[in-house]
Amino acid sequence: MKRALLLLSVFALTSCKQNLIQKVNIENSTAEATAPLSNATKRCISCHKIVTPGIVAQWQNSRHAKITVAQALKKPALERLISARKVPKKFLNVAVGCAECHTQHPHEHADTFKHNGFMVHVVVTPKDCATCHPAEVAQYENSTKAHAYANLMKNPVYHLLAQTVVQKLKLSDKGKLTAQPTNDEDFNTSCLKCHGSVVKVEGMREVKTKFGLMKFPILKGFPNHGVGRVNPDGSLGSCSACHTRHDFSMKVARNPQTCGECHKGPDVPAYKVYMVSKHAAVYKAASSSWNWDKPSLVVGKDFTAPTCATCHMSQLVDSSGNVIVRRTHNVMTRLPYRLFGIYATRHIRFAETFKIKNSQGLPLPYELSGKPLTSALIDNKTFEKRMSNMKKVCLSCHAQTLVNNHFKELKYAINYTNEQEKLATELLVKAWEEGLASKQNPFDEPIERDWVESWLFYSNSIRYGAAMAGQDYVTFANGKWQLGKVLESMESQLKSFLKTKPKKAKK
Amino acid sequence: MKRALLLLSVFALTSCKQNLIQKVNIENSTAEATAPLSNATKRCISCHKIVTPGIVAQWQNSRHAKITVAQALKKPALERLISARKVPKKFLNVAVGCAECHTQHPHEHADTFKHNGFMVHVVVTPKDCATCHPAEVAQYENSTKAHAYANLMKNPVYHLLAQTVVQKLKLSDKGKLTAQPTNDEDFNTSCLKCHGSVVKVEGMREVKTKFGLMKFPILKGFPNHGVGRVNPDGSLGSCSACHTRHDFSMKVARNPQTCGECHKGPDVPAYKVYMVSKHAAVYKAASSSWNWDKPSLVVGKDFTAPTCATCHMSQLVDSSGNVIVRRTHNVMTRLPYRLFGIYATRHIRFAETFKIKNSQGLPLPYELSGKPLTSALIDNKTFEKRMSNMKKVCLSCHAQTLVNNHFKELKYAINYTNEQEKLATELLVKAWEEGLASKQNPFDEPIERDWVESWLFYSNSIRYGAAMAGQDYVTFANGKWQLGKVLESMESQLKSFLKTKPKKAKK
Amino acid sequence: MKRALLLLSVFALTSCKQNLIQKVNIENSTAEATAPLSNATKRCISCHKIVTPGIVAQWQNSRHAKITVAQALKKPALERLISARKVPKKFLNVAVGCAECHTQHPHEHADTFKHNGFMVHVVVTPKDCATCHPAEVAQYENSTKAHAYANLMKNPVYHLLAQTVVQKLKLSDKGKLTAQPTNDEDFNTSCLKCHGSVVKVEGMREVKTKFGLMKFPILKGFPNHGVGRVNPDGSLGSCSACHTRHDFSMKVARNPQTCGECHKGPDVPAYKVYMVSKHAAVYKAASSSWNWDKPSLVVGKDFTAPTCATCHMSQLVDSSGNVIVRRTHNVMTRLPYRLFGIYATRHIRFAETFKIKNSQGLPLPYELSGKPLTSALIDNKTFEKRMSNMKKVCLSCHAQTLVNNHFKELKYAINYTNEQEKLATELLVKAWEEGLASKQNPFDEPIERDWVESWLFYSNSIRYGAAMAGQDYVTFANGKWQLGKVLESMESQLKSFLKTKPKKAKK
Repeated sequence: MKRALLLLSVFALTSCKQNLIQKVNIENSTAEATAPLSNATKRCISCHKIVTPGIVAQWQNSRHAKITVAQALKKPALERLISARKVPKKFLNVAVGCAECHTQHPHEHADTFKHNGFMVHVVVTPKDCATCHPAEVAQYENSTKAHAYANLMKNPVYHLLAQTVVQKLKLSDKGKLTAQPTNDEDFNTSCLKCHGSVVKVEGMREVKTKFGLMKFPILKGFPNHGVGRVNPDGSLGSCSACHTRHDFSMKVARNPQTCGECHKGPDVPAYKVYMVSKHAAVYKAASSSWNWDKPSLVVGKDFTAPTCATCHMSQLVDSSGNVIVRRTHNVMTRLPYRLFGIYATRHIRFAETFKIKNSQGLPLPYELSGKPLTSALIDNKTFEKRMSNMKKVCLSCHAQTLVNNHFKELKYAINYTNEQEKLATELLVKAWEEGLASKQNPFDEPIERDWVESWLFYSNSIRYGAAMAGQDYVTFANGKWQLGKVLESMESQLKSFLKTKPKKAKK
Repeated sequence: MKRALLLLSVFALTSCKQNLIQKVNIENSTAEATAPLSNATKRCISCHKIVTPGIVAQWQNSRHAKITVAQALKKPALERLISARKVPKKFLNVAVGCAECHTQHPHEHADTFKHNGFMVHVVVTPKDCATCHPAEVAQYENSTKAHAYANLMKNPVYHLLAQTVVQKLKLSDKGKLTAQPTNDEDFNTSCLKCHGSVVKVEGMREVKTKFGLMKFPILKGFPNHGVGRVNPDGSLGSCSACHTRHDFSMKVARNPQTCGECHKGPDVPAYKVYMVSKHAAVYKAASSSWNWDKPSLVVGKDFTAPTCATCHMSQLVDSSGNVIVRRTHNVMTRLPYRLFGIYATRHIRFAETFKIKNSQGLPLPYELSGKPLTSALIDNKTFEKRMSNMKKVCLSCHAQTLVNNHFKELKYAINYTNEQEKLATELLVKAWEEGLASKQNPFDEPIERDWVESWLFYSNSIRYGAAMAGQDYVTFANGKWQLGKVLESMESQLKSFLKTKPKKAKK
Repeated sequence: MKRALLLLSVFALTSCKQNLIQKVNIENSTAEATAPLSNATKRCISCHKIVTPGIVAQWQNSRHAKITVAQALKKPALERLISARKVPKKFLNVAVGCAECHTQHPHEHADTFKHNGFMVHVVVTPKDCATCHPAEVAQYENSTKAHAYANLMKNPVYHLLAQTVVQKLKLSDKGKLTAQPTNDEDFNTSCLKCHGSVVKVEGMREVKTKFGLMKFPILKGFPNHGVGRVNPDGSLGSCSACHTRHDFSMKVARNPQTCGECHKGPDVPAYKVYMVSKHAAVYKAASSSWNWDKPSLVVGKDFTAPTCATCHMSQLVDSSGNVIVRRTHNVMTRLPYRLFGIYATRHIRFAETFKIKNSQGLPLPYELSGKPLTSALIDNKTFEKRMSNMKKVCLSCHAQTLVNNHFKELKYAINYTNEQEKLATELLVKAWEEGLASKQNPFDEPIERDWVESWLFYSNSIRYGAAMAGQDYVTFANGKWQLGKVLESMESQLKSFLKTKPKKAKK
């Protein structure tokens, strides 16, 4: 009854604003959605068509607007995107509209607020999506992506590197650069845009809108669609990192550019490396005629060269409908190696990588000498399983000889870069011992920054280049040339320093 | 009469060249244009179909070839591209062809020459376009773009930087690098390709053509389609900078790549920053189905993510036809801040930025200490108006909370970079005082070049990254990592220098 | 008879694997090819549809699958892609399928092996393609591309540079960085991915396949599709470098991204330079409506801006069918200059550039002083011919004044960079003389690496930027700013070194 009154008052509000809303044709707009709308969603659209017309129009073009959940459940397995077997009855025969997502589980979302008679939350989370897509959410929760916030911010080594990147410097009275304390804003506006921020509600505020004064929650750490976002309902991740709201286009989600939002470099150059590969040449030239929207992709027909999603996530079938690899939202299941890092190793056994401890107590899957921390890494069987998953993708277009040789070359690149990083680390340790730099913060002084770039930019590029056949990145594009150069530069700095260092100070 | 004779002689020429022109079918080619051609344009095409067939074919596919001015004038407001209310009668019932543009105002164009009986000019200018598009030309004339030549070349600070970039170095007898005097060519072939050159006529020359010897003007500073080109008729700018000749496609003009010709970086990294944003991920994946050619774009329908033009120039409407923002050819009307520079400030009050004078007499909208030169900047009301214009675009797809938080983050990035640049400038001043570098040219010595890169490459990237949600550029892609590194490097150079400097020389 | 038995046994194998092959519908798949298949190709497809379904599907969509050779031979000249006048009878009335390419000349291919009754080779070579495309192969053989392996590996200067790039460094007992010996793998996984590797057969190995154990040749230097690949049949090059297997799409071959696989930079920045040009802006915005698949392209209609292939290779015609420039697979025929190198010169007279010897015996077309080695360069007539070929492309859309001025600007950039490289080389020689670096390997020490980057990255960028109107690369994107900076840095290193160098050690 109370709600009915509120709804009435909204209607009144809307009528009052006739001058503002010169022409609004709700019939037209809802007519485009072929699935029936819930009454709640109809109410959302009646106003949001005016205040955020872009969202409404995008959603109207989405699969969510065009098919009911009941219809989706009836699709044959290879064509079905919904993974739930049962969905609450109220969702069955309507489009997945505004209210269906933004009013679920109101008591669990700390950002729920009263809005025109509805209990609405701003930040839709994986928990909301899990109503229809539980398998995908479960897979995702087990991946490093879901834990990307903690894997950066609770890992003291990487946190210190991140802090060194984002901090403000000041000139002390003695003319020395000193680091200022960092705050949430420093991280939220840089690293955490990809890793995901902690989204917190810090009270409510009144805002002037086209429909008069309204109260909205004050959100900190927002806007953010990082892959490991810590949501106001405690869940981890943001499906909209890839499934861009509000048309949730598979074409957009599967497009390399979407991965490239975060994997572009110079620190994680996956996208750039892909872009110089033969695969990408085909993608760029031919993908306008590919079929991006099918849940299961027929190799050689729906696409003629792999993109990021093809190798790491998508479900592939042959033209007879046999499944080659199953869809996954845990990218680790096709990743035998962890290429990123000072050293590359087999992949880490668990998704919360910050929980590793090597012999020095550092959260790294190797010793500083390069020795892998076997206890933290996947075992032989898992390694072979993941390698086999990945090779199944390759083998659908390439002969065994080619595929095996390719992965031998990757192994060669891993060994090469690991050996060179051992060398870089030895030079760094020598610089510390001789007093050229202080190891208190191993990331901030000139020779230390050279060392950081040696692995973060150059060895990573070489490894990604070998992994994805983008050989520019093995060679002159942040590759071996730059790695060699930075090693020579580190040695040269040491030499110059030792030349001018007073003799007695030497150990 | 004289003209008729000349025309006849061209006909004769054409006939003489039968061997050359194996097959020419004028009927076919002109048939494709649906608007009738003026007699003059018919004559142009009859030869240029042979000598520059590409131009003719492109033009035939343009809107200019397909619709008469009279028809354009009758279009409803939201669909009309022509802004003139009245157009000289001779233009009304013909296509906008070669002669319509290249023979207008013959006496005003210094590059007008006699060509087969016509008084033709090579360089079509905004003054020519203004016959049909006066509103756009007027807006453009009031923007910084139109004054891009003077804003670089008449600003002694930026001119010296540009000179340092383009100059040739020589080794003096004493083995010291010394700068050689620069000439027009040095600037014309680099900076001025974007800023616009001064196009000058330096006589006529005779050239062998397919139709025999012909005389053409000798043009200096050409080819050039820079945004602030100083034209032979004294007008400023080049519409073809974006509206690429000769098909004048709106799709091309509105494409981010067109803006990217000049805004790519590392100095003005707008395009690159955009390209790592979520907006660009949608653009790359989905824009093949967007509607690029409509004068007024329906948000969420004609496009599903903004491009450069969407936010800065285009006319946006909702699906009921209500105008959200009006089209503008003065990008400043939606720009509250000037991000580019040593320091970021509110935008400059006037389009001719070189006319500013700070307390030291420098043409910069701030003191070297970072203090903004309030008198040169837009006032509160203008600032709020511009911010509101920009936010209207954002708000058509995003909630207020998100939009307001976004601009708070931009403010944070501005403050961050301004503080770091104050620091960088202090280090530079110290280097001058100690004798590590000479401030005569503040842009050429190693530590000075570090300072230049600190703001021109890194602080600019951080600001653009925050403004357009391309956080890679806030972080590792010419972002905070590189800014911190260059500050540490400047301090380290100073320290090394002071260590080896003879004591008595110290002040 | 023996073969028939073998074939039978394959059939048996296939039948045995019914569990594996849940659903296979050979009829469906071959039905898509409109040209009849040879019996051999039918047999290939029957298994490879299962083991490499992607290849089969791609090929089925290729021109090779859709038209017989006999039909191709009947096409009018401007539409014909086949250049042979006569083709062996057995190929005439079938599609160009698996067997047609992979079983040709079995005795000439060192990688031929018995495979289900056929003598198959893995690596299809230009010699195989020459059966139908002899003119293209002949042109290609005369280009530098075909000799890209030797031009790098048999040129002692470039080989030493490549070795310096790919080698592993070690720390000697005395704490000095020393180079380790390189091996084939080091080159094969980097430089030779583009230049082409030597593909060698090193025996056979037995591999577990879906059809049981099978023997395949062990290939070294593979996978590789470098332009100068040295094939197991002794031929040079790989047509699939651009004509990506197995759909051999002209659209892919002609796409700038394909050229960009190897010409991306920072060492050969052609692709990146193109991408900031006006031409590329049009390409990016408008090319989805271009006609990529026609053998002869109508300027202004089939495309509205040139790509790499347009200027350097494609056959262009006007809308009346007159040929503007003929198709070539020898890119040198439209290249007057060789921009790449320490100094830019007229292009080299022959394709095997490693055979040059300057007065010091070095395989460079200039002396270290910058003086061009005239005897190694094309003569006036060839230079004018090539310039004229290139200008014909430009002139189909641009007036003579514009085109001539453009090439004057290129000449200016060549002179500018050559003078600056003379300077850089003088600084390097001084560094050697003073003992700052040793000239034994001129590419590895810090000041030497600066010198390398001065020409390899910066002067090359400036030249390419001027050649293709991508002025970003003349200016701030690895352009004059970076060139000036590196020259200043070299001078500064020398100065610092001389300051701390003991007096008596000076010469």
